[in-house]
Amino acid sequence: MDRTNLAPAQARALFRDGLATPTAGWSSGFTQANLIIVPKEQAFDVLLFANRNPKPCPILGVLEAGQTTGPLLVGGDIRTDVGRYTVYENGVLVDEPTDLSAWWRDDLVTFIVGCSFTFEAALQGAGIPIAHIEQGRNVPMYRTNRRCASAGSMAGPLVVSMRPIAADRVADAARITARYPAVHGAPVHIGDPSDLGIRDLAKPDFGDPVTVADGFVPVFWACGVTPQAAVMESRPPLAIGHAPGHMLITDARDSDYLVP
Amino acid sequence: MDRTNLAPAQARALFRDGLATPTAGWSSGFTQANLIIVPKEQAFDVLLFANRNPKPCPILGVLEAGQTTGPLLVGGDIRTDVGRYTVYENGVLVDEPTDLSAWWRDDLVTFIVGCSFTFEAALQGAGIPIAHIEQGRNVPMYRTNRRCASAGSMAGPLVVSMRPIAADRVADAARITARYPAVHGAPVHIGDPSDLGIRDLAKPDFGDPVTVADGFVPVFWACGVTPQAAVMESRPPLAIGHAPGHMLITDARDSDYLVP
Repeated sequence: MDRTNLAPAQARALFRDGLATPTAGWSSGFTQANLIIVPKEQAFDVLLFANRNPKPCPILGVLEAGQTTGPLLVGGDIRTDVGRYTVYENGVLVDEPTDLSAWWRDDLVTFIVGCSFTFEAALQGAGIPIAHIEQGRNVPMYRTNRRCASAGSMAGPLVVSMRPIAADRVADAARITARYPAVHGAPVHIGDPSDLGIRDLAKPDFGDPVTVADGFVPVFWACGVTPQAAVMESRPPLAIGHAPGHMLITDARDSDYLVP
Repeated sequence: MDRTNLAPAQARALFRDGLATPTAGWSSGFTQANLIIVPKEQAFDVLLFANRNPKPCPILGVLEAGQTTGPLLVGGDIRTDVGRYTVYENGVLVDEPTDLSAWWRDDLVTFIVGCSFTFEAALQGAGIPIAHIEQGRNVPMYRTNRRCASAGSMAGPLVVSMRPIAADRVADAARITARYPAVHGAPVHIGDPSDLGIRDLAKPDFGDPVTVADGFVPVFWACGVTPQAAVMESRPPLAIGHAPGHMLITDARDSDYLVP
C-alpha cells in the first residue's frame, strides 16, 4: 500500500475499518490535524482558549454539537476516522479506543486543530531535514513554564514541539514556517531549552526523544497538544483527543494554509 | 476639548459621565471597536460565527460572563464607557441607552470586534481621502446578498462598508488595508454594487450616504456590523451592541494590528 499517495478519504476509510497506526508520511500534501472533543457545556471555554492562544491552538474547523462530519472530512465520520483516540474523564486518561462508539454523545463538539506536520514538508522541500522523520520517531513535545492565556475553566501550559535545525538553516526554518500562521507559524523559541523550563530534551512529555547532533540548534514551535494539556488540567467531565501521532487526515491541502 | 488627542481612558471617562456623541476622530492612533454582548447561552454560537467569518467579525477581545473590564479598557467599565448602546430583545431594537445599568446581567459575555476606522488613518496617511470623514458623515454600510457561514443559531448576511476611492488609488487602498487583517483587511469587492445585491448606494442600511464623485470607484470592505445583523436575524432573547458610530475606544493602538 502506498500510504504517501492515498487520497485522504481512502486513508480515513482504512482507519474506519480498524487500522491504528501513526499517520506520519500519509497522504502527502494533505493537512493532518489534532482533535479535541468536549461537551457543549465546555465548548465556549475551549473556543475562547483557542482564540486567545492562536499560535498553539489554530482552529481549522469545528463540528457543532452532535455533528460527525464536515467539509474537512467529506463523507467521513469523526467517530471512526482517526486511528486511535484518547478519552479523558475529569482530566484522567481512561480509554484509548480505535473508535468512539462507546463514548459518543449528541452534545459533543469537535475542534479540528492545526498541526506542525503541515509545514514539515515545506522545510524538507527547502533541504532542511526533519530529525524525527529521519529517525523514524514521533516529534518530541514538552510542557513549558509559559502559561497560556486562560479562558473560563481552561488553563494550562504552552506545549511545544522541538526540531533540531542546523545553525546555518535556523533563519530559513523561521522564515518558512512563519508563512504558515494557521498551523503554528514561526518558532516561539530558539536555543536554550532551560529558558522554557525544559530540563532534559531526552525526556519529552509527549512523543519520542530525538538526537540533537553537533552544530544543530533546538528550535521550538507552539504545539497543538496544548489544548489537550489544558483539558487535562481543567478536568472537564469528558474530553476526547487523538492519540499522539494518530492525526485526522483532512481534505485540506497544506498549501491552503500558506500565506503569500 | 481636543478630542483627537484624548487618551482612551479620558475619552471613556467622558462617555461614562453621560456624553453620547459619535467617536469618529477621537483619540487618534487608538483602536475603536464594535461591541456585541449576549448571554452565555448564545456565546459559543457568536464566537463560532466569528471564527468562521473572520473578515467581518475579527475578535479583538472577549470579556467572560459577568466581566465588565479587561486589558482593552484598563480601568474602564463596558456597561458605561460607550456613548450609546443598542438593546435587542428577540431581534427587535427595544432601547438605545447611554449606559447598561438597566440591562446588565452576570451571564452576559462581551465581544469586542475590530472596526475599519483602524485602517482609515493609514489610508489618509497615504494621501487617500476618506469621503465620509470629509463630508462629516458616518460611513455608509449595506447588507449584501452574500451569506455568512452560519454557526448554530447565528446566521445572516455579510454587511459591508463602502468608501469611494479614486480609480488610480484603488490598488493602493487594497494593498494598505490588506496589511490590517485583524480589522477587516483587504476589500471584499471593488466596483459594481449590484454584484453584492446593493440596489442604491444612496440608501445605506446603516450609517449615512456619501457622494461618489466622477472618477471614483466604490470599494467595499467587510464590516463589523455583520454580527449585529446576524443577531437581529437569529433573535436571541437579549443582545446588546453599540449604536452606529458610537464605538468603544480601546487602549490598543492601530499599529498593533498592522502586519509587517
